[in-house]
Amino acid sequence: MKSVLPVILISCLSFSFCAGSGEIDPAAYAPVAERLRVDGLRDEKAYILLADLLRASGPRLTGSPGAAAAVEHMRRLMESLGFETWLEPTTVEHWVRGGEEAAIVGRSKSGDLPLAISALGGSVPTPAAGLTAPAIEAASFEELERLGPAVSGKIVFFNHPMDRTRLETFRAYGEAVQYRSMGAARAARQGAVAVLVRSATLRIDEHPHTGLMHYESGTPEIPAAALSTRDAEILSARLKEDPSLRIRLRLDCGFREPVLTANVVGQIRGTEKPEEVILVGGHLDSWDLSVGAHDDGAGCLQAVEALRLIKEAGLKPRRTIRAVMFMNEEYGGTGGRDYAADPRRRSEKHLVAMESDRGGFLPLAFAVGGPPQVAQKFARCAELLKGLGLSGIQAGGGGVDIAAIVEQGAVPMGFVPDSQIYFDLHHSALDTLDKVHPREIELGAISLSLMAYIVSQEGL
Amino acid sequence: MKSVLPVILISCLSFSFCAGSGEIDPAAYAPVAERLRVDGLRDEKAYILLADLLRASGPRLTGSPGAAAAVEHMRRLMESLGFETWLEPTTVEHWVRGGEEAAIVGRSKSGDLPLAISALGGSVPTPAAGLTAPAIEAASFEELERLGPAVSGKIVFFNHPMDRTRLETFRAYGEAVQYRSMGAARAARQGAVAVLVRSATLRIDEHPHTGLMHYESGTPEIPAAALSTRDAEILSARLKEDPSLRIRLRLDCGFREPVLTANVVGQIRGTEKPEEVILVGGHLDSWDLSVGAHDDGAGCLQAVEALRLIKEAGLKPRRTIRAVMFMNEEYGGTGGRDYAADPRRRSEKHLVAMESDRGGFLPLAFAVGGPPQVAQKFARCAELLKGLGLSGIQAGGGGVDIAAIVEQGAVPMGFVPDSQIYFDLHHSALDTLDKVHPREIELGAISLSLMAYIVSQEGL
Repeated sequence: MKSVLPVILISCLSFSFCAGSGEIDPAAYAPVAERLRVDGLRDEKAYILLADLLRASGPRLTGSPGAAAAVEHMRRLMESLGFETWLEPTTVEHWVRGGEEAAIVGRSKSGDLPLAISALGGSVPTPAAGLTAPAIEAASFEELERLGPAVSGKIVFFNHPMDRTRLETFRAYGEAVQYRSMGAARAARQGAVAVLVRSATLRIDEHPHTGLMHYESGTPEIPAAALSTRDAEILSARLKEDPSLRIRLRLDCGFREPVLTANVVGQIRGTEKPEEVILVGGHLDSWDLSVGAHDDGAGCLQAVEALRLIKEAGLKPRRTIRAVMFMNEEYGGTGGRDYAADPRRRSEKHLVAMESDRGGFLPLAFAVGGPPQVAQKFARCAELLKGLGLSGIQAGGGGVDIAAIVEQGAVPMGFVPDSQIYFDLHHSALDTLDKVHPREIELGAISLSLMAYIVSQEGL
Repeated sequence: MKSVLPVILISCLSFSFCAGSGEIDPAAYAPVAERLRVDGLRDEKAYILLADLLRASGPRLTGSPGAAAAVEHMRRLMESLGFETWLEPTTVEHWVRGGEEAAIVGRSKSGDLPLAISALGGSVPTPAAGLTAPAIEAASFEELERLGPAVSGKIVFFNHPMDRTRLETFRAYGEAVQYRSMGAARAARQGAVAVLVRSATLRIDEHPHTGLMHYESGTPEIPAAALSTRDAEILSARLKEDPSLRIRLRLDCGFREPVLTANVVGQIRGTEKPEEVILVGGHLDSWDLSVGAHDDGAGCLQAVEALRLIKEAGLKPRRTIRAVMFMNEEYGGTGGRDYAADPRRRSEKHLVAMESDRGGFLPLAFAVGGPPQVAQKFARCAELLKGLGLSGIQAGGGGVDIAAIVEQGAVPMGFVPDSQIYFDLHHSALDTLDKVHPREIELGAISLSLMAYIVSQEGL
């Protein structure tokens, strides 16, 4: 159902404010906003295209066959949508999980109590037969230090729950995630033989949430795994009853050879200033415990959908609007850095970079970073965004993958999604398509599409 | 984990602004807002109490044993929470579904294509053996009228999809629901023998969505059922291939004797002006196809939780804060009208009425109705609401159950939840506990709790 008339109307309107006095006239963009909303909500393509990716790739851990399949799938998809499409190389580490198991050791083998764990990304394996050691609990690094030499020879169990009382779940995550990322290094300093880390989620359930961890040079590298919150509660209770209880842990994970892979780039070339780029992106890699529907399949397909909606509406942006599917956000961020460092960037100027990497949930507001005059310039877009259900414009924007290009001067922008549910799924087996709502993911894509188009017409 | 000190601190603060200059000082309420948020998000009691209700009652169609069980459950719950609790009588119609089936008639019985249907509330039954008649499709009442006498002797299939392109799903619902409520009456005027109505949902799935329908006097009462959207699509396609196709329909539904039941009321009596009431409510009845987790179990437990949080924080409201679980919103609204007409109301003055009946989804804003000076008075509460993630205060408020008390002068208020998902579940088998998120339902309850408390201290 593509009527020709609205396209012509929109094109004329677009042209009329191309000259740009510096003051954005939201009324001039109202027909564009309406068209993007109607097309987007009618067809819900972000969700449909996300389903295609997840089916084609499965989980997309950096360096894995799934990640390679995703690169090829997204290249073909963007080509088929008529975007100028290419790959840009990036080399990634290739860590694989292998088998893994843990249990509270009982009097007999049949009396063992299994624990739901997942090795943390980057962990070294245990000996092939596993290791068994007494467990010791610490709620924080301060408590770990107080335990002093008592930690030696033990498996440290970091039991720091995410703080439910915070409205901002990303802050609660920020407080809790240090035990995942640095717990092994800190425990190893005191002679621990392994660590189990309570999963970073606000729910109590049986799903471990993995994620990246780091060792520090000069400290032994000890195995590290995430423990489900349910089993963290059980282990903590058992340790109170029996402080001498022992845990058996086996992790077969480890590193393979690094892999040459790619960021996938697609764009609509600008008609007047093609060298000026508005980037819209997400990261194509995921963790391996699920297909990464929200993290960050959603962000990738929202970027693609943002461009597709602009094309479908027959809009001709003055500046280039580019979708970038970054590789390797989860495992070191080489994709974002290599993109910024690529020689192609020398003849380009990135005005704005928008990254969607907080899930495809309902967009609540639109964040604009950079100097205050940028937010001021786009302040009048608030009423257009309200037509998409967003409350308006606020300070913010950013993301791991766009950090390097922002450092080169691009202004970060992006929608702010509802964050109440994200950590229920994040990095776990629960991050699947059924958790994504077709309208919610689409509204995020529409907001990106609209704002990318306005920047393409107005500049900064 | 109830510390005594914060309670005392909050009580003193409350007292200091009791006198009330008419200007609300949000800073004075910040400790209260913080306490309500911390207690609410930590314990997620709205969700836990909702789960208890759904387990105790099951579906709660007006007049059913489930609805009676719900009355008793909520009475006991509110008593156990220390609220002054009582029942107020209301008499309701008692319609029961019975067996139901429909199919596109094939050449042989085994060639029939079953259709997923649910009788609409209030429908008369078909003859016990069912009825079989040709189907005829109409997308609107205008189309029905154009069909004229061609409708006679047929089953009219109203196939009006909800408009996906609208951001406001309640508006799309408002447009589509007339075919459910008035379709049978309109089709009967032209001699139809029954109606099937496409379900009012934005999804294409196999779940019929029921709801109330009305006959008109002087027109024959014909059977009416909702058809799943998936089967509406199939039926529409089949009718294009074969305009003479016939449908077999059997509905065993019908009315029993009216039932005397009750609204359930619980309150925290005001310390200074107990006769002035701030009402927080939802409706206790549901449709029969599910437990009505969002519609409106969520609203009931949010009202209870709003009062529980105030009590838990040790707050002593100056005016009475009252939770009302209205009976029979879905089936005629007698509960709301009887509440307003009850003799007990004569010695009371309802300042504000808040109804949560749009699902327990993320609260996006807080609506304030009444004359403009009320919104103006509470405008400064916006910053407190932002601490709960709401964008601020907007015009609005209202609900079926509080309409009568609002007519008597109460100002309607209430949070505005995200509406993108509500109609996926509404009045169908999908409205179950797993669709409710503990934090989302809680944030709505906290916003009600905070605003009810502020009104209780400040008046209007």
